[in-house]
Amino acid sequence: MRVRRRVFEIVEAARPGDRASKVFDLAIIGLIVLNVAAMIAESMPECAARWPGFFMAFERVSIGVFIVEYVLRLWSCVESDRFSKPLLGRLRFARTPMAIVDFFAIAPGLLPFVGLDLRVVRMLRAFRLLRIAKLSRYTRALGLIGRTLTSKKEALITTGLFMVMLILISSTLMYFAERDAQPQHFGTIPNAMWWSIVTLTTVGYGDAYPVTAAGRVLASIIAILGVGMVALPTGILGAGFVEELSRNNHSPVCPHCGGRLHG
Amino acid sequence: MRVRRRVFEIVEAARPGDRASKVFDLAIIGLIVLNVAAMIAESMPECAARWPGFFMAFERVSIGVFIVEYVLRLWSCVESDRFSKPLLGRLRFARTPMAIVDFFAIAPGLLPFVGLDLRVVRMLRAFRLLRIAKLSRYTRALGLIGRTLTSKKEALITTGLFMVMLILISSTLMYFAERDAQPQHFGTIPNAMWWSIVTLTTVGYGDAYPVTAAGRVLASIIAILGVGMVALPTGILGAGFVEELSRNNHSPVCPHCGGRLHG
Amino acid sequence: MRVRRRVFEIVEAARPGDRASKVFDLAIIGLIVLNVAAMIAESMPECAARWPGFFMAFERVSIGVFIVEYVLRLWSCVESDRFSKPLLGRLRFARTPMAIVDFFAIAPGLLPFVGLDLRVVRMLRAFRLLRIAKLSRYTRALGLIGRTLTSKKEALITTGLFMVMLILISSTLMYFAERDAQPQHFGTIPNAMWWSIVTLTTVGYGDAYPVTAAGRVLASIIAILGVGMVALPTGILGAGFVEELSRNNHSPVCPHCGGRLHG
Amino acid sequence: MRVRRRVFEIVEAARPGDRASKVFDLAIIGLIVLNVAAMIAESMPECAARWPGFFMAFERVSIGVFIVEYVLRLWSCVESDRFSKPLLGRLRFARTPMAIVDFFAIAPGLLPFVGLDLRVVRMLRAFRLLRIAKLSRYTRALGLIGRTLTSKKEALITTGLFMVMLILISSTLMYFAERDAQPQHFGTIPNAMWWSIVTLTTVGYGDAYPVTAAGRVLASIIAILGVGMVALPTGILGAGFVEELSRNNHSPVCPHCGGRLHG
Repeated sequence: MRVRRRVFEIVEAARPGDRASKVFDLAIIGLIVLNVAAMIAESMPECAARWPGFFMAFERVSIGVFIVEYVLRLWSCVESDRFSKPLLGRLRFARTPMAIVDFFAIAPGLLPFVGLDLRVVRMLRAFRLLRIAKLSRYTRALGLIGRTLTSKKEALITTGLFMVMLILISSTLMYFAERDAQPQHFGTIPNAMWWSIVTLTTVGYGDAYPVTAAGRVLASIIAILGVGMVALPTGILGAGFVEELSRNNHSPVCPHCGGRLHG
Repeated sequence: MRVRRRVFEIVEAARPGDRASKVFDLAIIGLIVLNVAAMIAESMPECAARWPGFFMAFERVSIGVFIVEYVLRLWSCVESDRFSKPLLGRLRFARTPMAIVDFFAIAPGLLPFVGLDLRVVRMLRAFRLLRIAKLSRYTRALGLIGRTLTSKKEALITTGLFMVMLILISSTLMYFAERDAQPQHFGTIPNAMWWSIVTLTTVGYGDAYPVTAAGRVLASIIAILGVGMVALPTGILGAGFVEELSRNNHSPVCPHCGGRLHG
Repeated sequence: MRVRRRVFEIVEAARPGDRASKVFDLAIIGLIVLNVAAMIAESMPECAARWPGFFMAFERVSIGVFIVEYVLRLWSCVESDRFSKPLLGRLRFARTPMAIVDFFAIAPGLLPFVGLDLRVVRMLRAFRLLRIAKLSRYTRALGLIGRTLTSKKEALITTGLFMVMLILISSTLMYFAERDAQPQHFGTIPNAMWWSIVTLTTVGYGDAYPVTAAGRVLASIIAILGVGMVALPTGILGAGFVEELSRNNHSPVCPHCGGRLHG
Repeated sequence: MRVRRRVFEIVEAARPGDRASKVFDLAIIGLIVLNVAAMIAESMPECAARWPGFFMAFERVSIGVFIVEYVLRLWSCVESDRFSKPLLGRLRFARTPMAIVDFFAIAPGLLPFVGLDLRVVRMLRAFRLLRIAKLSRYTRALGLIGRTLTSKKEALITTGLFMVMLILISSTLMYFAERDAQPQHFGTIPNAMWWSIVTLTTVGYGDAYPVTAAGRVLASIIAILGVGMVALPTGILGAGFVEELSRNNHSPVCPHCGGRLHG
């Protein structure tokens, strides 16, 4: 199975000096970028009208390439130590996050043959954007973000719970304060929640804002708390990210005993 | 009093292996979440019209459950070392922050029997949302935020005072700059304060904004200072949160004498 | 001059146990807060109409109290070691930042006797808000912020210069991109600068926004750079503040030689 | 070539005590600031009408001065050790970032003699703002930012990729959710991307916002993720900046062996 060994080397991230593997990597990334560009262009009526049929053809060709790539990966993955067993190894490989993303990226191309409702397929096309996520196979970038999010998971869930409570409490209070003055914007709690989220994230579209004195005092307190709410995930994520980066680069060592000064 | 001991174990946060206590905890959390969902649904006319009477019945049942839970907590709290005295211990327990939240959560159900104005009771229903705060009894999440806020209390009050001064000074200056051009938005200092808070928190609804040249120059300086104002609590809270988390995990030790390198 | 010694102790921040000095401090703070409240109330027509003459009388009384306080401070300051010389010491005291703030706070009350244009005095009333700054005489709060701003002065000026360049470049580019489509919002560079500042601080009122394709692409890049621009002072100020706080509390010491591990 | 040596000393940043060089530095900075002011004033019709011809004349004079300055720098740069070879050294000097900025700053003055379309020259005038960048020759300010951006380059590219993915995915989802309800704002993916960027940077102009229930739920999740997206570059840049500053000031040394405790 020397052919499978070579295919495995090519479809995996290229090692230095392996030109064929590098060309394959760049071609796949290029095709993914072109797919995203085609999807954006297709949504514009002038582009869709100028090149009729082009987008459908390009879609079919790239789905074909991605299916071949997926099959090659699934076939050659048994060369890796982690997935060495013929059947169980391939099943385990298909359950890795990257392989699941790859599968959903080709799913819109597989489904028409099954004969599903076309409207559903139309909605599934949004999954095509997941192909961008495949870029992370070639860069350590998203992996770094992933590790940071994992190491600070507990702290982020804490702030998330705090955020949900703040949104619920502030939208209920604003509902009581403004529902009589502006029933179209604060007439129900879900409506007030939309205002709440837009304010607490400091986006502030200006489609809904309080007009009564009580509502404005409440909204002022909520907006100032919103600044604090943004502060928590900002500090946690930022510090976690830098921590993760410095862990990769170096960790200070005591010049006497050689032990680490920071755990 | 072995019954009271068992009740105490059940109403408190579950220890590993205690299935009855765990079921009780999950049931109370579930009921709190359902209460919040019911409150949101009740505010929507279509939901209130489709199930007439349901919300009132659900409200009464859950108030009943929460009253029983509160009474059980108050009765069994003397099993704890902190509140062991029969009367004084229970009074001290009733004054803990969590017990006060619990009391206000059941207050809307107790008040109708006293014969108060219904409109007041209607407003008090907003306290029902405080039941969410009870979730913190079961998670360490809010406790962590609480400790961070306590350790950085002095710094946050400092920035709070700075914020109040910036709001007062900027709204007074904008009142002088814009009151003639836009009396409806900057005609009084409280009106200008609304603009000030919306700008300094960078929400920026766009309901009020300066139109004169002097007002725009002032507003530009205020907006840039606002970015700095957001910077202070962001940095303090973020750093404090990470500090608090790292204190729980580990503290670096000098490799020579075994003493802590960071206090 | 034992009377002057006692007056000096009273007008300065109270030492523990000195009740007269503490009462004086609280009375002055209370009068400052009442002055701010009166200024806000006076700007509202309904308040100004309900109590005619009250605000003018209250203004005169408090100006009188603040003048007496200023004279007492100036007279007794020679008891301090820093300002011990009768004339030169008092002049140097009058040039300290706090004394300058105190002077401008009483200036609106002194000027009418000089016979200036009343309109100028009206504008000078905005200085009355500076009385709030006197609160910092009694709290260490603003001093802490001051030290942090001083220690990070160089870094903040750097980011300030970067900010000014970004505002100038982005407003010039947007002026070229949007001046033909929206002459009322982007017709001159100062107009485009207003848009620039509102966008880069992420306030986003929505009074002016690009409508052309080129303008939107430019504005997207500027808005994303704006996020980075906010990042610089946020990180610097936050880190500097925490650093300053930790310096006050403790500084880690090497367990061997007792020297500080962090400078 | 003692004249060239002296010219080199003058055009480079002044050494302490060299008065002629300091005067030259200040004169060039002053002329750059005046150029920016003239450019802003020229864009205002009232200024352009009041002083006809002045701006054109001032432009010609300053272009002349900047050309002389550029030629002097190019002629004298061989006095530096880095660019000592007569031809190759000057070519290498012309390719340094600062020299490229200088060249583009004088380009609008050189092009008319070549006989280009005047409209192109008009657009090139925007390059005149690059003269501001020359200020960085005289201050270490921008250099510090540059080093921080370089040291955290990898982390910032990571978050940039994350940002692009978030913008692409969120605008595609919003395109599907809102295109039927608001074809003018969400009818194409590029239109939805404008909304996406305005929301994720928390600018929130309010020109486009979702109105359907599905669109609002999606937009809420996107806005909350946007807060996290701002958190990543904020933390990285801030921490990197402080790190860079502390490296310049001091690095803690082990009290035993004198070696640095932090790399």
